[in-house]
Amino acid sequence: MPPPTLTLTTDFGLADHYAGVMKGVILGICPKARIVDISHEVTPYAIAEGGYLIAQSYRYFPRGTVHVVVVDPGVGSERRAIVAEAAGQMFVAPDNGVLSMVLAREKHRVRAIENDRYFFHPVSRTFHGRDIFAPVAAHLASGVRPARVGKTVADAVRAEFAAARASGKGTWRGTVLHVDRFGNIVTNFASEEFPVVSQVAVGRLTARRVVESYDEADSGEAVVIAGSSGYLEISIKQASAARKAGCRVGDACRIRV
Amino acid sequence: MPPPTLTLTTDFGLADHYAGVMKGVILGICPKARIVDISHEVTPYAIAEGGYLIAQSYRYFPRGTVHVVVVDPGVGSERRAIVAEAAGQMFVAPDNGVLSMVLAREKHRVRAIENDRYFFHPVSRTFHGRDIFAPVAAHLASGVRPARVGKTVADAVRAEFAAARASGKGTWRGTVLHVDRFGNIVTNFASEEFPVVSQVAVGRLTARRVVESYDEADSGEAVVIAGSSGYLEISIKQASAARKAGCRVGDACRIRV
Amino acid sequence: MPPPTLTLTTDFGLADHYAGVMKGVILGICPKARIVDISHEVTPYAIAEGGYLIAQSYRYFPRGTVHVVVVDPGVGSERRAIVAEAAGQMFVAPDNGVLSMVLAREKHRVRAIENDRYFFHPVSRTFHGRDIFAPVAAHLASGVRPARVGKTVADAVRAEFAAARASGKGTWRGTVLHVDRFGNIVTNFASEEFPVVSQVAVGRLTARRVVESYDEADSGEAVVIAGSSGYLEISIKQASAARKAGCRVGDACRIRV
Repeated sequence: MPPPTLTLTTDFGLADHYAGVMKGVILGICPKARIVDISHEVTPYAIAEGGYLIAQSYRYFPRGTVHVVVVDPGVGSERRAIVAEAAGQMFVAPDNGVLSMVLAREKHRVRAIENDRYFFHPVSRTFHGRDIFAPVAAHLASGVRPARVGKTVADAVRAEFAAARASGKGTWRGTVLHVDRFGNIVTNFASEEFPVVSQVAVGRLTARRVVESYDEADSGEAVVIAGSSGYLEISIKQASAARKAGCRVGDACRIRV
Repeated sequence: MPPPTLTLTTDFGLADHYAGVMKGVILGICPKARIVDISHEVTPYAIAEGGYLIAQSYRYFPRGTVHVVVVDPGVGSERRAIVAEAAGQMFVAPDNGVLSMVLAREKHRVRAIENDRYFFHPVSRTFHGRDIFAPVAAHLASGVRPARVGKTVADAVRAEFAAARASGKGTWRGTVLHVDRFGNIVTNFASEEFPVVSQVAVGRLTARRVVESYDEADSGEAVVIAGSSGYLEISIKQASAARKAGCRVGDACRIRV
Repeated sequence: MPPPTLTLTTDFGLADHYAGVMKGVILGICPKARIVDISHEVTPYAIAEGGYLIAQSYRYFPRGTVHVVVVDPGVGSERRAIVAEAAGQMFVAPDNGVLSMVLAREKHRVRAIENDRYFFHPVSRTFHGRDIFAPVAAHLASGVRPARVGKTVADAVRAEFAAARASGKGTWRGTVLHVDRFGNIVTNFASEEFPVVSQVAVGRLTARRVVESYDEADSGEAVVIAGSSGYLEISIKQASAARKAGCRVGDACRIRV
């Protein structure tokens, strides 16, 4: 049997000890765990971006993987924690919509995390990643059945950040989900929903040509590409489209078909 | 028996190959090792910050974990290397005070690392992380007894960066131990020693209200919080207190009770 | 038998999910894999820097390690992928010269990667790290013989970025291979080829003294050091030589013997 796999997606950054401490807690509970970082550099408190990153990633992990997602402007509040079963995997996260893209795509069952037997005690007010999310995920990875952590709920928060909205004849408005390291701007316009596009605009930048690979773009030209993400992206070959556009995660974008 | 666990805390950054090479050396000696990064983004040469990060972390790791800490303005000099046994774990580090917070808190035994049989040869002048700290830690994780690496010493360097000093009637001076990704300012005022506080000031910022969670703060208000670190922190909800204060690791801070 | 070890060297950064997804694909194919990050912070598209980092690292990894290197301005184009066997290890990379320093140093055999049975399907246009490099490396780490992935080729791209060129009497020109976190400037002047040096200059900075360790330098003084890299480096004690020089990866440098 392959060793249990867990992934971490947080806005904790890598300069602090937070992610390392979560791993210590996990290994204490589940010594054979294999822990993979998806990202700890989610823009602080950017729920949509964290949700995008886990939604992009889970399908590439083995069946049974437990994904921990901790991005939450309300950590330390009385926010509920949940575990979702979907796609043969498990997702442990705050109930703030960060799992929306996964839940929109997969059949699922969501439970509220209630059984403090699986928490790390004493539970602090400020570091639920260490005290709730990591230990519950480690217990699940060790074979604890989800039913043991809490009851099924039907009212998990579902955010709408993944939906583009019509804003006129042949035009839609959306938002920037993510800016990657190369400055590629990932919009929330799903490639499948917009098979034909005449332009996509973000901030100061308008892209008017659709290409299939970065290679086809002219030097300096902003292009639209149906990236590996499943969403339309704006790119400039070997340059940062985001810097040129002056945009950040959460900014508005517009599409015309 | 669970696999041997090692952690790494350095100021090497993640852009360079230094941390990766240390891991290669460790896996060559201890193939079953499980290696966890605490942080490689310690402010260069900031001994107090590195010491803070490992002191915050070790308690969350399994018994027998070997922690490697490499933060040293004097790497390449004739600085002694040490291994400390404390809290059922081991700590491999330069003898420059970086383990002070751990040693102040735990019963311990410190040894000078002398036996070059456990080094990686030839030993370079500039990369003791690879040539001394990583291989010695890997041998310890593999079961080599600490007594084999060197003799017990009683004069390990103990830095005073963890102690606040009285500076007037009801006032104390301290230093900024760490600024986390969210801009929270971690002071070296231990929460237990200052149960009642009227204000904490750093740079341009003075916080006058003590709260129990980030959630209680008003928007834009600087608050004092007894964080999960055990030290008083200055925070601004969803904003960077450090940027507002204009402060960095090592700067002075003041408290009034 | 020790678990299979793989390393990753990319320009994907750590904010994105790209590196995490590659690890998921690897673990799906080779569940016992031990994956070590060399660096994901290679300057985007900087082939020479990626090549430098892997060349600095592979010797410290156990026999049989599979190294994945993905730095490519031409990803998504019809660029060939290769696997090189050298030094008892394997290297999976685009055929763009990124393995030049390794191949210049070690006896080797290079194969073109052709057998799409070992790819992750469907193969995207934009993310060959996930769809080609990671799965092929994972199959090799699992014991698939290199001969199964493709035929031996003799025309692998060899870049010249590792060679300094004579530019006058006693002077040579080279390039900056890498700037590390401490601001040390790594030139491509091999220490062995330049045992005696009177000065090394980069941008606004000229270093006129050769020292053996950082410790010997005066405060603020730019020195030349034969670093652990095997290349001459310009350093300033506890300060950034690169900032002082105003230089970046790929810039020209000059040496006088």
